[in-house]
Amino acid sequence: MTTPSAPTPSTASPASASIAAPAPLTLDVLNAASIGDFTQRLDGLYEHSPWVMERAAARRPFRSAAALKFAMATAVREATREEQLALIRAHPELAGRAAIAGELTADSAGEQARAGLNACSPEEFATLQALNADYRARFGFPFIIAVRGPTGAGLTRTQIIAAWQRRLRHAPDQEFNEALRQIDRIAEIRLADRLPQPRAFGEQIMQWAETLASHSDSPDDLTCTYLTPAHRAAAAQIAAWMQAAGFDSVRHDAIGNVVGRYRADPAVDAPALVSTGSHYDTVRNGGKYDGRLGVLLPIVLVEHLHRAGRRLPYDLDVVAFAEEEGVRYGSTFLGSSAYVGRFDPAVLDAVDAQGIAMRDALRAAGLDPEAIDAAAVDVARLKHYFEVHIEQGPVLFERNLPVGVVTSIAGSVRRMLTLRGVASHAGTTPMNMRRDAAAAAAEIVLAVERRCGSTPSLVGTVGVLTVPNGSVNVIPGACTVSLDIRAADNAVRDAAVADLETEIAAICARRQITVVTEELMRAAAAPCAPHEMAYWSDAIAARGLPAHALPSGAGHDAMKLADVAPITMLFTRCGNGGISHNPLEIMTADDAQLAADLTLDFLERLATDA
Amino acid sequence: MTTPSAPTPSTASPASASIAAPAPLTLDVLNAASIGDFTQRLDGLYEHSPWVMERAAARRPFRSAAALKFAMATAVREATREEQLALIRAHPELAGRAAIAGELTADSAGEQARAGLNACSPEEFATLQALNADYRARFGFPFIIAVRGPTGAGLTRTQIIAAWQRRLRHAPDQEFNEALRQIDRIAEIRLADRLPQPRAFGEQIMQWAETLASHSDSPDDLTCTYLTPAHRAAAAQIAAWMQAAGFDSVRHDAIGNVVGRYRADPAVDAPALVSTGSHYDTVRNGGKYDGRLGVLLPIVLVEHLHRAGRRLPYDLDVVAFAEEEGVRYGSTFLGSSAYVGRFDPAVLDAVDAQGIAMRDALRAAGLDPEAIDAAAVDVARLKHYFEVHIEQGPVLFERNLPVGVVTSIAGSVRRMLTLRGVASHAGTTPMNMRRDAAAAAAEIVLAVERRCGSTPSLVGTVGVLTVPNGSVNVIPGACTVSLDIRAADNAVRDAAVADLETEIAAICARRQITVVTEELMRAAAAPCAPHEMAYWSDAIAARGLPAHALPSGAGHDAMKLADVAPITMLFTRCGNGGISHNPLEIMTADDAQLAADLTLDFLERLATDA
Repeated sequence: MTTPSAPTPSTASPASASIAAPAPLTLDVLNAASIGDFTQRLDGLYEHSPWVMERAAARRPFRSAAALKFAMATAVREATREEQLALIRAHPELAGRAAIAGELTADSAGEQARAGLNACSPEEFATLQALNADYRARFGFPFIIAVRGPTGAGLTRTQIIAAWQRRLRHAPDQEFNEALRQIDRIAEIRLADRLPQPRAFGEQIMQWAETLASHSDSPDDLTCTYLTPAHRAAAAQIAAWMQAAGFDSVRHDAIGNVVGRYRADPAVDAPALVSTGSHYDTVRNGGKYDGRLGVLLPIVLVEHLHRAGRRLPYDLDVVAFAEEEGVRYGSTFLGSSAYVGRFDPAVLDAVDAQGIAMRDALRAAGLDPEAIDAAAVDVARLKHYFEVHIEQGPVLFERNLPVGVVTSIAGSVRRMLTLRGVASHAGTTPMNMRRDAAAAAAEIVLAVERRCGSTPSLVGTVGVLTVPNGSVNVIPGACTVSLDIRAADNAVRDAAVADLETEIAAICARRQITVVTEELMRAAAAPCAPHEMAYWSDAIAARGLPAHALPSGAGHDAMKLADVAPITMLFTRCGNGGISHNPLEIMTADDAQLAADLTLDFLERLATDA
Repeated sequence: MTTPSAPTPSTASPASASIAAPAPLTLDVLNAASIGDFTQRLDGLYEHSPWVMERAAARRPFRSAAALKFAMATAVREATREEQLALIRAHPELAGRAAIAGELTADSAGEQARAGLNACSPEEFATLQALNADYRARFGFPFIIAVRGPTGAGLTRTQIIAAWQRRLRHAPDQEFNEALRQIDRIAEIRLADRLPQPRAFGEQIMQWAETLASHSDSPDDLTCTYLTPAHRAAAAQIAAWMQAAGFDSVRHDAIGNVVGRYRADPAVDAPALVSTGSHYDTVRNGGKYDGRLGVLLPIVLVEHLHRAGRRLPYDLDVVAFAEEEGVRYGSTFLGSSAYVGRFDPAVLDAVDAQGIAMRDALRAAGLDPEAIDAAAVDVARLKHYFEVHIEQGPVLFERNLPVGVVTSIAGSVRRMLTLRGVASHAGTTPMNMRRDAAAAAAEIVLAVERRCGSTPSLVGTVGVLTVPNGSVNVIPGACTVSLDIRAADNAVRDAAVADLETEIAAICARRQITVVTEELMRAAAAPCAPHEMAYWSDAIAARGLPAHALPSGAGHDAMKLADVAPITMLFTRCGNGGISHNPLEIMTADDAQLAADLTLDFLERLATDA
């Protein structure tokens, strides 16, 4: 997005663009070119650093733009630290000296102008100069951000300044990697301008996600909790999109799910049922893609199939589950449990923070709580359930991979421990006469970290850690400690829990601390079906990308479906280091496009089974 | 307090007491007796365990009852674990089978009756039986408590049940030691019935402490904060006691201190001034002896000197400092800083939780904020300040020592650290990609414990430990951690602080956690004067007790006096394992008596300097 002061020959200035516009690139052209020609044609994607393209060329042929982008990003990651630093430093500052002096290249000038950086007020300009100085003093290189943001739309000045201030708090290594990722993203955006690629699926998904996010319980963020007016409006919007897309039937079931069915090819006798979807409710102050990606993406694909007059050899249900997050009633998976006929009617008596029983909230929304059981799908017909979901974690992001195949949804155990020692005077109690509940808690935190760090796919977290009414000068007499232990495999998780129980008992015995343990939750792991996982992996490999397999540490609607059918999941890369359940949750239209392409491929591979 | 079923010959039953009352014992008789006779005369102090007295006999001659008691307690501590367990098990249950069957000895029966245990309601009796069963199941021996409590007055059934329930939560080793301490206390009480000892000072101090505790800001506990009606009533009560005791002058100064002066022998020309005292304010829900012991004890001694017509060769000020704890205005040592002429007038503008400025609170109490400076003592005349104070810690208690000599009041550094990492999803963030602020905090807690455990007189505490808004399923993005580092010597403290700074920086760098440090407080250590410390040690040694020297980890008014004069402090044992700033803070009339005897001795030794 930024170019150094001397424009390189291949980067045409806007004035000369209409004269010297190069012929449209294709992957075939790139794959057949000499290394020199290849590098020349892609010059400027990575600023003043033709070595990136040169090294990527060695990985040809590329079967997709995604594979080309991955090869370039990999070349950057495999470069020396000095080369990486030089690449970063090849970029000018935002609204910096070069911009003021009119020395930016056409690309950079256009990108900065699109973000309005050429139209700052004097105060904003002063803010940007101060940020430039602070940032350079802290990290020793210029601040780099893809000012055409993750959706392809331009970031505003306000968004850029917010991101800048946030990144100033990064640790140096973290920010170094962030700068490289922004450079990859800039290259991706510039490549899209040169190499025509199908974009319709991705752009439609991103646009719908924006529209859906306009329905919120609160004006300032995205909060869409079960059965609120915003939630009902979101359901109506999804149903409307389904209708327009050409689904054969669209129904609201009694729990609030929206179920669109795209019927099988009439030539197929007694077709099977394949189901896909995800949830449309959100956490408070949540992200736009968590859940919703898995609803919108298959609607886009059905629209595509319908327009092409194509039918699959199975019925396809796309389900927008009404509730997964558990925000309003403390119970999760309400939508998917009703869809599979395993809804617990006791939950109808639960009340929200305002004292409204779920049964009454359903009636107020025009839904019939007595009809929930009848709304279940015919699970005997259900051949497979798959779910496309944003990863909500950093694994794909850190590996520069747009997608990954889920191996298993982790089983989890959650516990709350109350440790009790003796509160006493911080000044008068010698170290060897203490019964410090917080010191025991500290050992437990580190034991969890050590034990869970020793096994792949196992994670353990102490998220709650509190000395109640702690004072600086009082030795903690009590401490509250939570445990959240998850693994792709129940046995792995249970072995870790058992080891930690033993270690916690030993810590507390040695320190004369009593411990009371309450189990808050225990959920079984849901392994994915190897047969259909291979379809995902094959689809990814067909595009020349590594088919990275990873467990899902988060729970998903697919867990409930796993009780009645084989399941698979496709994860997409979660931007901003994997942040989710947060307005900073982000993904790109490019990744959405790729996920849609892969899903279409998956549906076709699944058809071979039918 | 309890005796086994078969009464031993020397334990006369009440019926036969008037017939077979033995001649009053004296220490001289005990010191001259054969070991057999010694053991026989003290039989029954430790139930069915003549070996305790036998072994203590080897430590004769005893120069005080305190030395005898310490020798017996030491014999118990030096016994084998089996002997100790047998001693504990020699005691019957409270309101247990033996009591029901009328099989208790006279001592036990009398003691249980005094606590009203022979007059339980059926419900209370059922409660006691359940406690007996629970306690025996948990610890394997009967519950033992000195039913004549620490003050010599009987405990009520309610108090006994509360202590029982509290002790049921003890760790096994802790409760084993507690049982031995209760047995020592029972022996002390029984010895008082047989060996006549001076008790007037101790009983007067304990009785006055009870009376003073009746003035409280709240009806249910002892809270006496600066300038409240209860606080003014306490001041008036102290002044009345001083007047009655025979002080030559009693004045309320402008900060609210009550200063009684007992003038020097008129024959002494230009006498020096010696000052003693402590504070009469309390923390919220505090103890009866913290501060107040050091006020009441010297009043008792002046009364004694006055009645005996004795004068010292120096003026003696007894000061009841109005404020030390800092509860109402967040500033500590208001009384002692005014007394030494170092009051900071900026504090007058401080406001309490109700918005009342200290200046206005003083005026409302009839005190003149403009006169605070004029109220200071003539520090040029001040030859020495000493303070008698309850230890507020476990050191003397654990060593079975009634008193100790303070070497130095610890200097302290208090800091608040704010750690920031990245909050992320507990399920989806692999262990090696986390920036967990609580894990860094855990390492810091253990680093403080390790570093401060490595040096005598150094203590370090993390009293505040909190993940703000922590959730079970979110990796902590922030954690608040306090530090309180104290040592008898500033250099020792500062070395520890410096080492911990380095270690905290390393922990946070390794984990990519940022840390913001705020220093809340830094106070210099106040070393005690060796010359006068020796007077205390000599006085203790003269009674045949070890003169245990220990630092004070807590701050005391003596810290402020140390700015202008040599200081010393005598600590008395703090019961209930050293609990203070709590209604469970307790001491015994026996220890108060000993401390008063030692202080009288100290005043006389100080006279040799005058």
